[in-house]
Amino acid sequence: MNLQKLEKVLERDLTRISEEKPVIHHITNYVAMNDSANITIALGASPIMSFAHGEIDDLVSVASSLLINIGTLDEYIIQAIMLAVRSAKKHGVPTLLDPVGSGATKLRTFSALSVAEEGVDVIKGNHGEILSFLRKEGVVKGVDAKATAEVEDVMEVSKKFGSVVVATGKEDFVTDGKNAYVVRNGTEMLGRITASGCMLGSVIASFMAVQKDFLVASIEGLACYNVAGELAAERSFGTASFRSNLIDEISKISAEKVMERLDLRKVV
Amino acid sequence: MNLQKLEKVLERDLTRISEEKPVIHHITNYVAMNDSANITIALGASPIMSFAHGEIDDLVSVASSLLINIGTLDEYIIQAIMLAVRSAKKHGVPTLLDPVGSGATKLRTFSALSVAEEGVDVIKGNHGEILSFLRKEGVVKGVDAKATAEVEDVMEVSKKFGSVVVATGKEDFVTDGKNAYVVRNGTEMLGRITASGCMLGSVIASFMAVQKDFLVASIEGLACYNVAGELAAERSFGTASFRSNLIDEISKISAEKVMERLDLRKVV
Amino acid sequence: MNLQKLEKVLERDLTRISEEKPVIHHITNYVAMNDSANITIALGASPIMSFAHGEIDDLVSVASSLLINIGTLDEYIIQAIMLAVRSAKKHGVPTLLDPVGSGATKLRTFSALSVAEEGVDVIKGNHGEILSFLRKEGVVKGVDAKATAEVEDVMEVSKKFGSVVVATGKEDFVTDGKNAYVVRNGTEMLGRITASGCMLGSVIASFMAVQKDFLVASIEGLACYNVAGELAAERSFGTASFRSNLIDEISKISAEKVMERLDLRKVV
Repeated sequence: MNLQKLEKVLERDLTRISEEKPVIHHITNYVAMNDSANITIALGASPIMSFAHGEIDDLVSVASSLLINIGTLDEYIIQAIMLAVRSAKKHGVPTLLDPVGSGATKLRTFSALSVAEEGVDVIKGNHGEILSFLRKEGVVKGVDAKATAEVEDVMEVSKKFGSVVVATGKEDFVTDGKNAYVVRNGTEMLGRITASGCMLGSVIASFMAVQKDFLVASIEGLACYNVAGELAAERSFGTASFRSNLIDEISKISAEKVMERLDLRKVV
Repeated sequence: MNLQKLEKVLERDLTRISEEKPVIHHITNYVAMNDSANITIALGASPIMSFAHGEIDDLVSVASSLLINIGTLDEYIIQAIMLAVRSAKKHGVPTLLDPVGSGATKLRTFSALSVAEEGVDVIKGNHGEILSFLRKEGVVKGVDAKATAEVEDVMEVSKKFGSVVVATGKEDFVTDGKNAYVVRNGTEMLGRITASGCMLGSVIASFMAVQKDFLVASIEGLACYNVAGELAAERSFGTASFRSNLIDEISKISAEKVMERLDLRKVV
Repeated sequence: MNLQKLEKVLERDLTRISEEKPVIHHITNYVAMNDSANITIALGASPIMSFAHGEIDDLVSVASSLLINIGTLDEYIIQAIMLAVRSAKKHGVPTLLDPVGSGATKLRTFSALSVAEEGVDVIKGNHGEILSFLRKEGVVKGVDAKATAEVEDVMEVSKKFGSVVVATGKEDFVTDGKNAYVVRNGTEMLGRITASGCMLGSVIASFMAVQKDFLVASIEGLACYNVAGELAAERSFGTASFRSNLIDEISKISAEKVMERLDLRKVV
């Protein structure tokens, strides 16, 4: 990916999000709902949050992308997720899976795998969650990954499910199974707020609504989010002001700000 | 409504909310719960959030007003809403309906109509949601209305259900079916945070607890909320600081601040 | 408790939380989830929020403490709570109960009693909620206690259930049934945000993960939270900035800051 070209693409995609206000349907966890809604609007898109079985198909059919996040589950939500994923397939709606805590419990690993096997366009998780798709065993402590994935592991997950994969951690990898990029931006403050990964999912899903090359959409989302994090961290006293500043920075993000700081390299 | 008189009424009603701390029972959506609870307390009232069937009647019976918001539904919540509305009727508790997304899906339109037909004191929605009560068809894209209602439409909804109706949008209308007012306050920033309409519902419901003329209560709530929005927007960097500043301003609102900026006109 | 000794213990326990990042499993209400997750991470611990029956035992078994909060209930959550409490007992995981609104409705009083009777390590509530364990009748208006408990009442609850009890209100009491302490810190601003008591529960539960003398853990949590509240109130314009500043201060808390302001006295 040519960086010069990326700036223009990013500029155009940010403008499209603001102007078209694409509907991003979320089935996400109770902890992240408010933050994810706010960061989606901050970027210019229009979030909906609903898992009511009776309206999922109506909502997914008008959505420009679908985000599935398994952070808090019960039987009703699991069914809602499967209905939504199938509805998205039927209507050709791009889908992102955030497999929160996959690897931590059998329920989460099984739920994440079930969704991934239906076929999703992007899988975004931390290194431990992404590794759980290979090993199918508990490598995650709670919902915070301790494990570190190699880029080869991430590419293997990508090939296995035919999805673009974003793996966040010490290094953030993005791959479509053939090419792999590393993004070295962000701040440790992103690990000190809840729903940090969930909000990244919303940002990437917003780009997926306007950018049909999902590898590019994933890089755009990750780049904007991590740079916004850096800008926010520089003026935050503690973790809660960081959270607020992060969303503020997303609401003021520009291709220029992102490119000034972006450390993106092709590794494969 | 005489503006001089309104200032005195508003001053008295704000004082009553602070002193009496009326309980405002909410059945609202998962996205807005925290924001709605915080803005209700910021104004001085005491929010409860519960949809547990086994305690709805106990809670509604001690509440000073009831807010019903259909932003996130499932079968259990729909039943809880109907139980609450009937309990409110039994105990004479003023009720506000916020028909989030009515018109966007059959489930929402049907749920909103079912509640409105039970008889509620105030219906507060955006223009598209209010129009859905007339046309009963999809005019809403996602949960953000694109439609614009005329004051005659809003009055028709008011007459149809015997409720005061607040319709927010480019212009905010308030009507009891005979008289209609327009409020030209607020800021475009209110459209850039989630739960903005939901929080307005909580503010109006708080006034309904102490002001039994619900047309006046609705104008008071709308005036306070929109003026707080203006004050907040003037000192916000982005959307998240605006959200925080909005609730801050509500916690410091006064009749004097509101009247200084209020642009309220009788149109019918 | 020797204050000099407390400072060293607190310093060590704060360091242990940061370094070990203990998993604090929460079954808590929808309103508080995001705030409780954020304050737990701010302190250095690692929150999980889940009530999915199929994974409760998996999650509790790796948790360092369990927090049960009955703020929003339905049948599924009530069952999840009982599963979690029994799982915690089986795995020797310290448990805190926050009986939100106990006394306000039969459902809450009954649920709170059912959990307390299973045996929990700490019960933390406001004065009205704690009194509800003795009188089993409605003394709470909504979820905000109007009642004032005497230290003897609080000690009686402690003896009745064999739990450390923290009762918050005009004066905050902590007792193990034999000894009783009063903490006179905090700010009235803590009563002007939602989830204030819920966040205190998360802070105490975080200390319980590293401090097995639960009387000490409760005092540590209460001391940190109330002092952080004082520091936050001094630089807050309104209630929402206070909320953000409170979490910020918890993310920067130190034993030194706490001891400088702590007003802790042994009363029995």
